[in-house]
Amino acid sequence: MAILVVGSVALDTVETPRGKREDLLGGSATYFAVAASKFTQVNIVGVVGQDFPNEHIEFLRGCGVDLSGLEYAPGETFRWSGRYSADMNHRETLKTCLNVFAGFEPTIPEGYRESRTVFLANIDPDLQSRVLAQIHREERIVGLDTMNFWIQRKRQALAKALLEVDILTVNEEELKLLCGEQNVWAAGRVALGLGPDAVVCKRGEYGSVLFTNGSAFALPAFGTRDVVDPTGAGDSFAGAFFGYLDGQDDWQSDEALTNAQVLGTVVASFTVEGFGVDALANASKDAILARRLEFGRLCRFRFDFPA
Amino acid sequence: MAILVVGSVALDTVETPRGKREDLLGGSATYFAVAASKFTQVNIVGVVGQDFPNEHIEFLRGCGVDLSGLEYAPGETFRWSGRYSADMNHRETLKTCLNVFAGFEPTIPEGYRESRTVFLANIDPDLQSRVLAQIHREERIVGLDTMNFWIQRKRQALAKALLEVDILTVNEEELKLLCGEQNVWAAGRVALGLGPDAVVCKRGEYGSVLFTNGSAFALPAFGTRDVVDPTGAGDSFAGAFFGYLDGQDDWQSDEALTNAQVLGTVVASFTVEGFGVDALANASKDAILARRLEFGRLCRFRFDFPA
Repeated sequence: MAILVVGSVALDTVETPRGKREDLLGGSATYFAVAASKFTQVNIVGVVGQDFPNEHIEFLRGCGVDLSGLEYAPGETFRWSGRYSADMNHRETLKTCLNVFAGFEPTIPEGYRESRTVFLANIDPDLQSRVLAQIHREERIVGLDTMNFWIQRKRQALAKALLEVDILTVNEEELKLLCGEQNVWAAGRVALGLGPDAVVCKRGEYGSVLFTNGSAFALPAFGTRDVVDPTGAGDSFAGAFFGYLDGQDDWQSDEALTNAQVLGTVVASFTVEGFGVDALANASKDAILARRLEFGRLCRFRFDFPA
Repeated sequence: MAILVVGSVALDTVETPRGKREDLLGGSATYFAVAASKFTQVNIVGVVGQDFPNEHIEFLRGCGVDLSGLEYAPGETFRWSGRYSADMNHRETLKTCLNVFAGFEPTIPEGYRESRTVFLANIDPDLQSRVLAQIHREERIVGLDTMNFWIQRKRQALAKALLEVDILTVNEEELKLLCGEQNVWAAGRVALGLGPDAVVCKRGEYGSVLFTNGSAFALPAFGTRDVVDPTGAGDSFAGAFFGYLDGQDDWQSDEALTNAQVLGTVVASFTVEGFGVDALANASKDAILARRLEFGRLCRFRFDFPA
């Protein structure tokens, strides 16, 4: 099995209460790919500029990510910089320079067109649809992420893309905006009516809710005391989520989806413990499985207690 | 067994996206008492003015709450009014008229001094300590709630009261302020060092975290689509939490505390479905136990899935 992820590869400058780092390897496709690579083969389609450091290429290759779909375009790499609040629950975008990403027109290499799982990270919904049109496989798992900008500016194109999506992953604010509902449980139901069979609502330090037909499943976040940089938590959650599902025959079962949600939660908890992809990259499979056990202790209660 | 709760009994005027209601029966001791009365005998100590409607007295009596500790003072009852945001996650206090509550000096009736469980709702920490000085029983469960105002203005008195407390229940913002920590998991650990054996951090629609020595336990909130009025959710959570514990011999066990947290979560989910205490009062024991099962489906994941 293999995952194709299409999205941004960027250079991030990040300021948190724990420090400041410049030109970190970032971008939603990057975080997704590094997380997913712990579970399955990952193929990335994105674009970088000629300034993109070779060490980042080597790093991604070292994670086992296939980069034959990473295009080099004339100009500079997409750059983002942001600053987090003291409690790290909010961030302010200081600068977004799309650079070569502004003209991104994803071409899916022939070898990627049979990927079982396709994750459309946050890009223009028209591009998301055009990516899907290039995928031949019938039996596939399609995931999609988006953001306020596309929900507000390209709602029709997004609605069209969503019709082909199996699993939508968005944060809580985006879900509410997309669905015109202030209550997250109501919004989840509405989102299921837009096309996806499952909707994952990411709630940052408050965990996540998975909506499927007729049910919802809520998990808290893993209790991380040592938050260094929250950037990429949501994308690495999605990477682990789809990375795990890609290996499951019965991926639509509640059990598989819930397991994916647990692993997404655990992997994201590593991501925030370091700047950029550092702590995520260093998290071994053993460490992830050990923390999954800890997570169980954090939130699994006995069910059969007396009335 | 029996619980003594000491705190405010009030008349609330509430505005939410679902409507406006004036002079509702409110106050933290009220919500606590109505919730706890579903599990144990509740004795209330508070003060109301001569304007306090007799129907509210009848209502509380109908819940089985003992009111011999409810004092009538010359003047008007404590009045609070507030308005909730569109998503109901924030509220603005429009008016606080302490009235007779400003001079509240709790006297614990002789018959209450043997209560096994004492809950010190949000009042001046000096009063909280003076209440405890009137309780004779050695083996008791003492709970305490507080708020930003006391944390900032009477930190020393609060620190003194906390030394005698078994279980602290506060919301997340208060916990962080009390502990000088921006990270909730770090704050929970600090709070345990202030005296309590357990700390319950209430997170509104995001659930709660229970901190005990060496461990933390996180639960999401029950997914309520039909939120009408969030007022009293936290106090009714505490009422069910302590109401359940009051009947447990081994109340310090992880199992008892976790069960209490589950019941608190479930009972609070009823509270928010109506204005004031209406939906809370109407929640039968059977309905609570049925929703507890539903809650299990919402957040209990299988643990033994393959690596």
